[in-house]
Amino acid sequence: MFLQLLRQHIPHTLQRRATLIEHRKTTCICAQSLQYCDYGEPADVLQLVELDLSEPKDNEVLVRLLAAPINPSDINTIQGKYPVKLPLPAIAGNEGVGEVLRAGANVQKLKRGQRVVVIESALGTWRTHANFSEQQLLGIPNKLDLATAATMVVNPPTAYRMLKDFVPLAQGDCVIQNGANSAVGQIVHQLCKAWGLKSIGIVRNRPNLEELKTYLKLLGASEVLTEEELAQKDVANKLCKLPAPRLALNCVGGKNASDMAKLLAVKGVMVTYGGMSRKPVVIPTPALIFKNISFCGFWVTRWMREHKGKPTRDKMFAELIEMLDQGKLKGVKHEMVPLKDYKKAVSDALDLKGMV
Amino acid sequence: MFLQLLRQHIPHTLQRRATLIEHRKTTCICAQSLQYCDYGEPADVLQLVELDLSEPKDNEVLVRLLAAPINPSDINTIQGKYPVKLPLPAIAGNEGVGEVLRAGANVQKLKRGQRVVVIESALGTWRTHANFSEQQLLGIPNKLDLATAATMVVNPPTAYRMLKDFVPLAQGDCVIQNGANSAVGQIVHQLCKAWGLKSIGIVRNRPNLEELKTYLKLLGASEVLTEEELAQKDVANKLCKLPAPRLALNCVGGKNASDMAKLLAVKGVMVTYGGMSRKPVVIPTPALIFKNISFCGFWVTRWMREHKGKPTRDKMFAELIEMLDQGKLKGVKHEMVPLKDYKKAVSDALDLKGMV
Repeated sequence: MFLQLLRQHIPHTLQRRATLIEHRKTTCICAQSLQYCDYGEPADVLQLVELDLSEPKDNEVLVRLLAAPINPSDINTIQGKYPVKLPLPAIAGNEGVGEVLRAGANVQKLKRGQRVVVIESALGTWRTHANFSEQQLLGIPNKLDLATAATMVVNPPTAYRMLKDFVPLAQGDCVIQNGANSAVGQIVHQLCKAWGLKSIGIVRNRPNLEELKTYLKLLGASEVLTEEELAQKDVANKLCKLPAPRLALNCVGGKNASDMAKLLAVKGVMVTYGGMSRKPVVIPTPALIFKNISFCGFWVTRWMREHKGKPTRDKMFAELIEMLDQGKLKGVKHEMVPLKDYKKAVSDALDLKGMV
Repeated sequence: MFLQLLRQHIPHTLQRRATLIEHRKTTCICAQSLQYCDYGEPADVLQLVELDLSEPKDNEVLVRLLAAPINPSDINTIQGKYPVKLPLPAIAGNEGVGEVLRAGANVQKLKRGQRVVVIESALGTWRTHANFSEQQLLGIPNKLDLATAATMVVNPPTAYRMLKDFVPLAQGDCVIQNGANSAVGQIVHQLCKAWGLKSIGIVRNRPNLEELKTYLKLLGASEVLTEEELAQKDVANKLCKLPAPRLALNCVGGKNASDMAKLLAVKGVMVTYGGMSRKPVVIPTPALIFKNISFCGFWVTRWMREHKGKPTRDKMFAELIEMLDQGKLKGVKHEMVPLKDYKKAVSDALDLKGMV
């Protein structure tokens, strides 16, 4: 679910003021932002606050934000349940896409009219306008659709890094993942396809199962199984045309993670990036000792922080942007909600158990 | 527990024959070995078999074995419950120390009278004499006591590699381990002391607890806690003088492993090499994602196989032998049992739950 921050959807007052500013280019912009002064349920604690925004400083860029996703981590942050604790009052939102309105005197790469995404975490993207430093932004092709652009800083890097950083994978190697229909899951299948890797997706059973299987295979999955199919004793036979997976990506935990671990090749690695079942990962000792399976975790927020300004990060974004631009990587289905309807939007996001 | 394979403890017939051989140097030696033709309980399936041994080939060494430990893995191998499955009939025993009786023409480093340990796994060490290739043996100082020498190929390398290969540890860094009084555990504390590392040992509660704590601290432990003390909420306060451990060594599993994992520093690693509680390792998802804790396993048999003839292995043994020779590394308490009493020995070893 997305908060649409496009000016045409911003309440009339703001639109008028912002327009005014653009003509004068002297006084401040009145931006709207979703703020919270206490941790709690988003619909209770979020308030739409108007705030005068000064001119961007020399190294800053004034950005009109166009769309921002509502991620599980956004909800958890507002609830105070996320490891990232912001000083209060805080502006919600972690990701977002915008357009450069004005650039400070020392800004090097970004120009008026250019589309940008916010690449530093926890800056507060649920707002109409903001001044960001140039280093906090990444220029992207203007033609990328808003939803794809707004979500390219968390999910695609998560999938990318998990596939790159834990096991050296060669063409034809196999990856298994649960939550295969999640935002990250869909990207994993697409990246595997692009990089010549086989991938097995595990999904929950559902009424339109065959349709989903077909869709994920279209994205790149070599095989799609339900959690029940994975748990069957003869599952290895079913997957015998594929090599034993060297990498497992887990966002579910509990029995499903254990079932995936059983299929891993000797010296395989399971990377956990979510725990939708709210159950821990349970590892039988022989899997650790005799199969030499390792269990690691991945948190994109930490990775981005640790690789700020490093060539590895630039290289990754360049590669992802190229794939997005060429349509080799597609965004997930989404719903756009105007900023003013934020209470309904965050409640609906909660009903979906925080799934993007 | 050890099988003592010294000639003076071998039944009279064998002693006479062996002596005879040494004078003639032409015919074969009659060796006794503990063999099994079927997997099963050691006391049921093991048989003391006499076997004529030919002269060592050019690259071989005739070894008179002096002592061999009874390890949990030896018992499990005979039971058919170990991942290493030997073609039957097989000679039991994985580790052992011996003395070179004769060396083949092309043998380079080993000479008559030299003490050796068997460094290749599953060759069968529960016997009085054997021909081994030179590569399967490692020359050691003759003055090392038999028990220390006989057990230097499995436990010390296990401790050594777990401390070296998973987390880069600097002087003053801290390691936590359960099963601190096990053979490996005692070596871990001693290596930590020698290498300037802090170490926390977790032990089961017992009548002579204070005595054990004192003993382990004497070996090198910075702190020793019971499993119950580790489980207490204020345990972090109790350990506040020590840095958060970067490495945890686990041979127990279950709740105890989870309790250790809680104390690990961000990006800490838990290495599992045993599962005495027979319970799996349970990892809460946030520990994986937000604390970036990794869970790996270690199996010395695989490591030794993969590093056969490599400089890393030679370097490790050279270092360990030096420490053993200088008394910086002490063997564990043990009991010597004559070979003929093998049925009692393997039964007693089982009663001790297979503990060395």
